[in-house]
Amino acid sequence: MNPRLFTFVGGNNGPWTVVRFQVVIGEPIPEPRKLEVINGPVSALPEGAHWALKGVTSNARYVEKDEKVQLDSKQAPLGRPEATHGALIPIRKNAQWWALTQNERRAIFEDRSHHTAIGLKYLPSIARRLHHCRDLEGSEPFDFLTLFDYAKEDSAAFDDLVEALRATEEWKYVDREVDIRWIRS
Amino acid sequence: MNPRLFTFVGGNNGPWTVVRFQVVIGEPIPEPRKLEVINGPVSALPEGAHWALKGVTSNARYVEKDEKVQLDSKQAPLGRPEATHGALIPIRKNAQWWALTQNERRAIFEDRSHHTAIGLKYLPSIARRLHHCRDLEGSEPFDFLTLFDYAKEDSAAFDDLVEALRATEEWKYVDREVDIRWIRS
Repeated sequence: MNPRLFTFVGGNNGPWTVVRFQVVIGEPIPEPRKLEVINGPVSALPEGAHWALKGVTSNARYVEKDEKVQLDSKQAPLGRPEATHGALIPIRKNAQWWALTQNERRAIFEDRSHHTAIGLKYLPSIARRLHHCRDLEGSEPFDFLTLFDYAKEDSAAFDDLVEALRATEEWKYVDREVDIRWIRS
Repeated sequence: MNPRLFTFVGGNNGPWTVVRFQVVIGEPIPEPRKLEVINGPVSALPEGAHWALKGVTSNARYVEKDEKVQLDSKQAPLGRPEATHGALIPIRKNAQWWALTQNERRAIFEDRSHHTAIGLKYLPSIARRLHHCRDLEGSEPFDFLTLFDYAKEDSAAFDDLVEALRATEEWKYVDREVDIRWIRS
């Protein structure tokens, strides 16, 4: 088992209660009542589960050294006691994105969309973890599973962050996105 | 099934005959007599097989636009009738490599090691395909499965290419590598 593998199960059971569910673009997935995340595989869909989405954490794909120094100095880990609120946002980018070369994607991602610069403004309030699923052996419905948590009072700030990213050139390449907000039960 | 998934099976059966086998660095794998490559998964190890290694083709990680233009104008696909000789070279890079940021790895890969510039000199003679396996859900023994084919008369040129790459700064990060040469039976 890859230790960087995480499985998100959505259904009737789990420590997180879904409080908001929005199909932003593309094909929906069933709306769950509860969520759980397992560090590892799930051999079969548990009873009461509607779906399981898996992804692996991996190396940086766009972040550069100077940005990492800033990120490391400001960011907080997932699971802080005060971080009772969160989001799971699965995302898929289209074929045009994936056909672009590394510097073309970097130019869109940062030079023009300022993905990291925007995100830095929300640290340490918003904690995050990115999981990749485009290169798993099965045919996965999304390319990325993005996970966030924050304190209740930072929920509005998280909305601002998501709105800012969705307005960027990078987001023109997103062809499937579901936005699931949860609170720790 | 991910259509970009390929499984390489090494053992007693397959259309490719292994003619040379070298453990370059790190833990060995059993030396096979034959190889086969399947576009898809292999549910169980076939009879007479010693191992199966799987990987997915994916987006460019370092190649930039200007380089892609050059590569596209010069490269040939795998499977040309004259390309009766080839190599399967599984490679793993160490934790230090994967902890580096994108621009640090790019600087090593191209600015200092000239990976693409070196490779371009051997096109169209050498055809290649890169498969990623570090981000599969299982724990894979390698990070990359590199596949090449070429005409018999280009075997020496392929040796030169491999020797040149192994002398680079990029290759200081390689901690496991097996070099399997084959001919189409």
